[in-house]
Amino acid sequence: MIKEITAKELNPERFVDEKVEEIRSAVGEGTVINALSGGVDSSTVTMLGHRALGKRLKTVFIENGLMREGEPERVTGLFGKLGVSVEVVDARKEFFAALKGIIDPEEKREAITQTFYARVFGRIVKDSGAKHLLQGTILTDVDETVAGIKRQHNVFEQLGIDPQKAFGYKIMEPLIQLRKDGVRKVGRALGLPAEVFERIPFPGPALSARVIGEATPERIETVRTATAVVERILAGTNAFQYLAILHEDRVTGVRSGKRDFGQQIEVRCWDSVDARAATPTRLSFDVLETLAREIILAVPGIVSVTYHIAPKPPSTIEAV
Amino acid sequence: MIKEITAKELNPERFVDEKVEEIRSAVGEGTVINALSGGVDSSTVTMLGHRALGKRLKTVFIENGLMREGEPERVTGLFGKLGVSVEVVDARKEFFAALKGIIDPEEKREAITQTFYARVFGRIVKDSGAKHLLQGTILTDVDETVAGIKRQHNVFEQLGIDPQKAFGYKIMEPLIQLRKDGVRKVGRALGLPAEVFERIPFPGPALSARVIGEATPERIETVRTATAVVERILAGTNAFQYLAILHEDRVTGVRSGKRDFGQQIEVRCWDSVDARAATPTRLSFDVLETLAREIILAVPGIVSVTYHIAPKPPSTIEAV
Repeated sequence: MIKEITAKELNPERFVDEKVEEIRSAVGEGTVINALSGGVDSSTVTMLGHRALGKRLKTVFIENGLMREGEPERVTGLFGKLGVSVEVVDARKEFFAALKGIIDPEEKREAITQTFYARVFGRIVKDSGAKHLLQGTILTDVDETVAGIKRQHNVFEQLGIDPQKAFGYKIMEPLIQLRKDGVRKVGRALGLPAEVFERIPFPGPALSARVIGEATPERIETVRTATAVVERILAGTNAFQYLAILHEDRVTGVRSGKRDFGQQIEVRCWDSVDARAATPTRLSFDVLETLAREIILAVPGIVSVTYHIAPKPPSTIEAV
Repeated sequence: MIKEITAKELNPERFVDEKVEEIRSAVGEGTVINALSGGVDSSTVTMLGHRALGKRLKTVFIENGLMREGEPERVTGLFGKLGVSVEVVDARKEFFAALKGIIDPEEKREAITQTFYARVFGRIVKDSGAKHLLQGTILTDVDETVAGIKRQHNVFEQLGIDPQKAFGYKIMEPLIQLRKDGVRKVGRALGLPAEVFERIPFPGPALSARVIGEATPERIETVRTATAVVERILAGTNAFQYLAILHEDRVTGVRSGKRDFGQQIEVRCWDSVDARAATPTRLSFDVLETLAREIILAVPGIVSVTYHIAPKPPSTIEAV
């Protein structure tokens, strides 16, 4: 049982000091490796590790082909300014090969987990000689995995998996007592710019969680373009999270007076404090119509756009 | 080329008089048969035929298993009050047998068309000895079929099909110069109660056009229940049309803290004059949230509800 630290009771400066000490004492003279995705959790844990270990923390950005538009450049640029050098590892072929033909959401997650930890990351860790992996798992990831709602790709111990045996390294998870609102406070305390710690959550399996059905390079490109439109238009809202989902169902459309049997994008935008419960943001119809129009203009093959109107529960924030 | 009569230039009383004469002179001493679905078009053409022919018009309601909740009772009751007796023909088994295993929208329409005209209706017409079929085809049906947007099940001549050769009877289409707004004026002039002529449009292939994928009895039952909720909640709006669509895609949901991999209902509600172009109705979020909540409560297996926000074109009013 993990003891939760609520955002309210959290003293972020003291939390950082304690975790820096814990990391140093666990690692000793060794080196540590971590994967930075650019999300709030992994950015915060990167800065925490950097404060504890300096250059003994090796941070990699794994380009899995499933990230948002311009993401590798954005992340390496931003952390470069903070004095943290990030190595980009191109693993697109390995991820798409692992995802080929898979339509079940859990099998997709499993394929990404295996490719990430056992293949790509296992190789990087081996080459680096690191004995520890630093990871930004938070309490909501654990809850959802244990409850069987979703398999979060970064939760092992709670599922009875020993990473040392399975992958050959130890996993450190200094944020595991926090939820999203707590992580943001810690990110702020570590000096991350607003651009990072205010970033909306993004799922571990990245854009593969944003396509219903097979995550092919073409379908990922479709949802990537739609995601860029949604993030641009909804950036001004104070919503907790917003996303685009590519459906597998085909719907009838019409272009230039002829039938155009096309695809549908579903937009979700959530109001939430900690992701455990959420309600759809009451966007204006001006914004909803702009979303529909610009997605249809920007994304080839899309003839229909919907907005998600059910709460969590019984829905979930992501669809896959 | 059919000459359009716009709602603006239409004189409904004179139109009715002319069409009554045309029907009488075409039919002579014979009998005519027509299928009443309960929608605006077929209700109006039933009253028109009844005015022209009295008891020589035989009106049947074909229970194809694809109609809305309580529809046979509603339609026969309502027309009974208007002095028109309607015979209900139970053909559910034939329709579901024809739809089995079919997922392509056009093949679904074709299966329904063939079952309706060639099998069920062909048999009824033969038994009745009628030489004419009276049908409520309108100009929008023709446009969309000719343009290849959708195959409307009641359009033959425009596709080069001779119903006399194909099915053994002649088809009369007295409303074919009108669009939906014109038909409503004619319905009013024929004394139909508001309940009928103000009814929102409903597609020819009925609820089979409201499920993406196979139209099984179970899936039709699911979308029938959702449709009842949507029609109840949106009855007070002045929208042109509103509908529920059952998706085939599965989405993640959560019930009682456990994952519930479920189904999604898409709600569409349209502002339109004549169905050629349409925009999503700007419903309030109170209404949207009520829709989501009540659909989830009423319909087993639904964990997610969306609202359609793209215009026609490039979308269409129905999804299938």
